Amino acid sequence: MAYRITEARIDRDQAQRQRILACALERVVAGGFAALTMQALADDVGIATGSLYRHFRSKGELAAEVFAAASQREVDALAAALRGPGSASERLRSGLQQFAARAWHSRRLAFALIAEPVDPEVDEQRLLYREAYAELFGDLLDEGVRIGEFRLEQIGLVAACLVGAIAEALVGPLSPPARAAREAGRPSPSLAQVSAGLVTFCLRAVGAEESTR
Amino acid sequence: MAYRITEARIDRDQAQRQRILACALERVVAGGFAALTMQALADDVGIATGSLYRHFRSKGELAAEVFAAASQREVDALAAALRGPGSASERLRSGLQQFAARAWHSRRLAFALIAEPVDPEVDEQRLLYREAYAELFGDLLDEGVRIGEFRLEQIGLVAACLVGAIAEALVGPLSPPARAAREAGRPSPSLAQVSAGLVTFCLRAVGAEESTR
Repeated sequence: MAYRITEARIDRDQAQRQRILACALERVVAGGFAALTMQALADDVGIATGSLYRHFRSKGELAAEVFAAASQREVDALAAALRGPGSASERLRSGLQQFAARAWHSRRLAFALIAEPVDPEVDEQRLLYREAYAELFGDLLDEGVRIGEFRLEQIGLVAACLVGAIAEALVGPLSPPARAAREAGRPSPSLAQVSAGLVTFCLRAVGAEESTR
Repeated sequence: MAYRITEARIDRDQAQRQRILACALERVVAGGFAALTMQALADDVGIATGSLYRHFRSKGELAAEVFAAASQREVDALAAALRGPGSASERLRSGLQQFAARAWHSRRLAFALIAEPVDPEVDEQRLLYREAYAELFGDLLDEGVRIGEFRLEQIGLVAACLVGAIAEALVGPLSPPARAAREAGRPSPSLAQVSAGLVTFCLRAVGAEESTR
């Protein structure tokens, strides 16, 4: 018996794959990677668990793909802000504010992307995406130095420092203990505070003119 | 037949456990967590693989314990430097220089601790140890602000930013691609450059007096 994979079959496969990824992202948005189990996902999609493995070899591979898709949206949004209008300092400021606000408004997803303990395949993607963020900041720093707005020497190193600082500044406020504190009405920093603190930290660190006034 | 766990038996168990951990750390120092397989470790220790599981329920649990032991040494070393003699800026400087130098002289271990993709149990420990580092920096920042040496408001946030910046500044130079570049004689930053760049970044970011001169 000979099988022929028709175009219609390929389209159906692609559509099902996309539906799986969309449902997987929904699970991560709602409950982090911890909520992304193959059984629950298969139920959401309305297929047998075994069918998931026709599209993704393992949960790690699926999680990595969800991570990459969600992270790429953040990279694109940051790129738009950093390349927008204004001085280099203004763009750094608005990029940071936007990044923090986006994280704040989707806290579980942001924590999942930045720091949730998860499969090594996701950690691999984290390293790659941190490089993508560092490249974006590197371009802005390069421009800022050329026009005399930023005062620094090792652009690559400073770009990496910014990426690390931003991630770590948000991990605490986004982490489950902080969320619990907020929900229980205990004092916890606001988005405005975190965002302002991060902007000051980064502008100073890159030797931005306005930061030393 | 009644068994009695004698003290000698408990001592033997403890000694074997310590030997397993020591061998496991050696493997991570030499080849990162990727080199920490239960089979290879059992061979090193000279016991059956099954015996490892009498001491550690899983590879992830073992890896997490190795991680914690190695990280605690770094935290202790950093604490000693940050609490040593000198002004707050001098102590921040020497703590950073020492941290970078220790990482540089044990690059595989440092990369394994900071960023190597690995079991979620290790990621959990990473989050905990980053908090421990942040506490150390927080104490120094607190003191620096009180004596008027540092100029900043949100100590917890800035401490987290420092931890993130330091980790990310080192990830690139310590990563496998950078090691390969160095070994192939291609240009790559030196410890002195990375260390100096990191010190400047951090002193500026905390509003240290000397950084704005």
